[in-house]
Amino acid sequence: MNPNSDHAELGPALQSLIQRAEQALDRHLPPADHSPAELHRAMRYAVLGGGKRLRPLLVYAAAHALGHDSTALDAPACAVELIHAYSLVHDDLPAMDDDALRRGRPTCHIVFGEAMAILAGDALQALAFELLADDTLRQTDATTGIAMLQVLGRACGAEGMAGGQALDLAAVGQRLSLTELEHMHACKTGALIRASVQLGALAAGADTNTQKALDHYAHAVGLAFQVRDDILDVEGESAVIGKTAGKDAAADKPTFPSIIGLDASRARLRELTDHALAAIAPLGNHAGGLRELALYAAHRHY
Amino acid sequence: MNPNSDHAELGPALQSLIQRAEQALDRHLPPADHSPAELHRAMRYAVLGGGKRLRPLLVYAAAHALGHDSTALDAPACAVELIHAYSLVHDDLPAMDDDALRRGRPTCHIVFGEAMAILAGDALQALAFELLADDTLRQTDATTGIAMLQVLGRACGAEGMAGGQALDLAAVGQRLSLTELEHMHACKTGALIRASVQLGALAAGADTNTQKALDHYAHAVGLAFQVRDDILDVEGESAVIGKTAGKDAAADKPTFPSIIGLDASRARLRELTDHALAAIAPLGNHAGGLRELALYAAHRHY
Repeated sequence: MNPNSDHAELGPALQSLIQRAEQALDRHLPPADHSPAELHRAMRYAVLGGGKRLRPLLVYAAAHALGHDSTALDAPACAVELIHAYSLVHDDLPAMDDDALRRGRPTCHIVFGEAMAILAGDALQALAFELLADDTLRQTDATTGIAMLQVLGRACGAEGMAGGQALDLAAVGQRLSLTELEHMHACKTGALIRASVQLGALAAGADTNTQKALDHYAHAVGLAFQVRDDILDVEGESAVIGKTAGKDAAADKPTFPSIIGLDASRARLRELTDHALAAIAPLGNHAGGLRELALYAAHRHY
Repeated sequence: MNPNSDHAELGPALQSLIQRAEQALDRHLPPADHSPAELHRAMRYAVLGGGKRLRPLLVYAAAHALGHDSTALDAPACAVELIHAYSLVHDDLPAMDDDALRRGRPTCHIVFGEAMAILAGDALQALAFELLADDTLRQTDATTGIAMLQVLGRACGAEGMAGGQALDLAAVGQRLSLTELEHMHACKTGALIRASVQLGALAAGADTNTQKALDHYAHAVGLAFQVRDDILDVEGESAVIGKTAGKDAAADKPTFPSIIGLDASRARLRELTDHALAAIAPLGNHAGGLRELALYAAHRHY
């Protein structure tokens, strides 16, 4: 896979936001030639090797939907991507999903060894919180900053991403209901996707009603993204999706197609996308980025 | 080892602060009977199974030295212990130090499996930040809260604890200088010990000069604690220290005794303890807790 093809399905405005996020990530990650250099290299490898950058895009697009744009968005945009990258490094470990391929490249522990991959993940999580705290002190009012840190903390923890991963591990070989499957994904990937939108909304000073609408949007997009992932795992080719196709089925993991079938999965995907678009309809033209991301989540080919 | 004997060397005031910290930890950890229950159980096992509670004690004692005591100290006291507990869980993993015994009990991955131990560590780190952010919003002014989150983030990351662990891994089989060894420990364990004292000082509204004095104290105590650890690894018995004695030498890890010898290590320990006590002398009687902890770090038997 050509890493540059990662974002071919997105329009120029979002493409340029990806560049903005990647430049900010490069700036905030520790330099590869400073001690402890091997750790820094592993962190940079995990974060800077391509990726859809969906979460930073959601931070920017949510704030833009409220007419807000400033450099204060770069810190939360980086923070959610650092968390996402750390979670992939840990998920790929032999004791977890044992994956050797990610984004078309060898996974972090294949390149740097297991111990360094564990530490790189740990350090990336810490960097996300540090960066958000640092930047908040400079750019936003402190009360908003604390609220953003709360949102990020909750999304990462036992009731969020880490909890969802635990549910995922427990689900191997189990027969889940659709509700249980959606709950697992709502934690495992949904929590951080919702946090991304919430961080953008908080940075933009959204009122409570707007926050709620955006949260409905984020919940639907997060699930839609996962349904699409499961459909791609059945339909896609490894060379295109950048990871091993058919892997979930082989690992005996419950998926949308395995529980409700491929046609019903496609119908659920359309339904979730409609929900997402309806939730942000009142925001009007500014919400163009959010709309594009909802459609991208549903229709992407990798 | 009887876990109740963990704190036998500390006086009644610090003993009761240990109880306060353990009650707060119990309260803030997710309940063992709520989903995802296995993850919650692993988190509770990692945190509530004894331990010296040095870091929470330093939070309390640093604030007390400035005449400050309130329930607002419980969140930072818990946060540093959650971080410490997560670091032990990850350090003990087969890919890292591969340790089966900790505090006289099987390590987290032995009981819960490697995947769950990785996730429990990840979730504990997130909980530390979430708890500090939550509590700050309730109890402290937001600007102080953000400063505390910055301190915690920096202490955990690539320039702090995780970085020190990376240096430690790289040091196996290497011949380090005393300076290099002390730098490694200053990151690996020193950064979080300094952060504990800084959090207590920030919560108490310490002025810059007092913060500096307390930081000198914390730096010396952190190193002294590690020198004592290395001496115990040579002199101690597994049954007393609660982990495998002679483990560092067997793993070919550089230690103070292996680099400068046992007598010079004891002399360095006395010197560091003198530095620590001198740094807090101007604080007078209120600093009794900090004094006791400096002496404990230097003289403990496990």
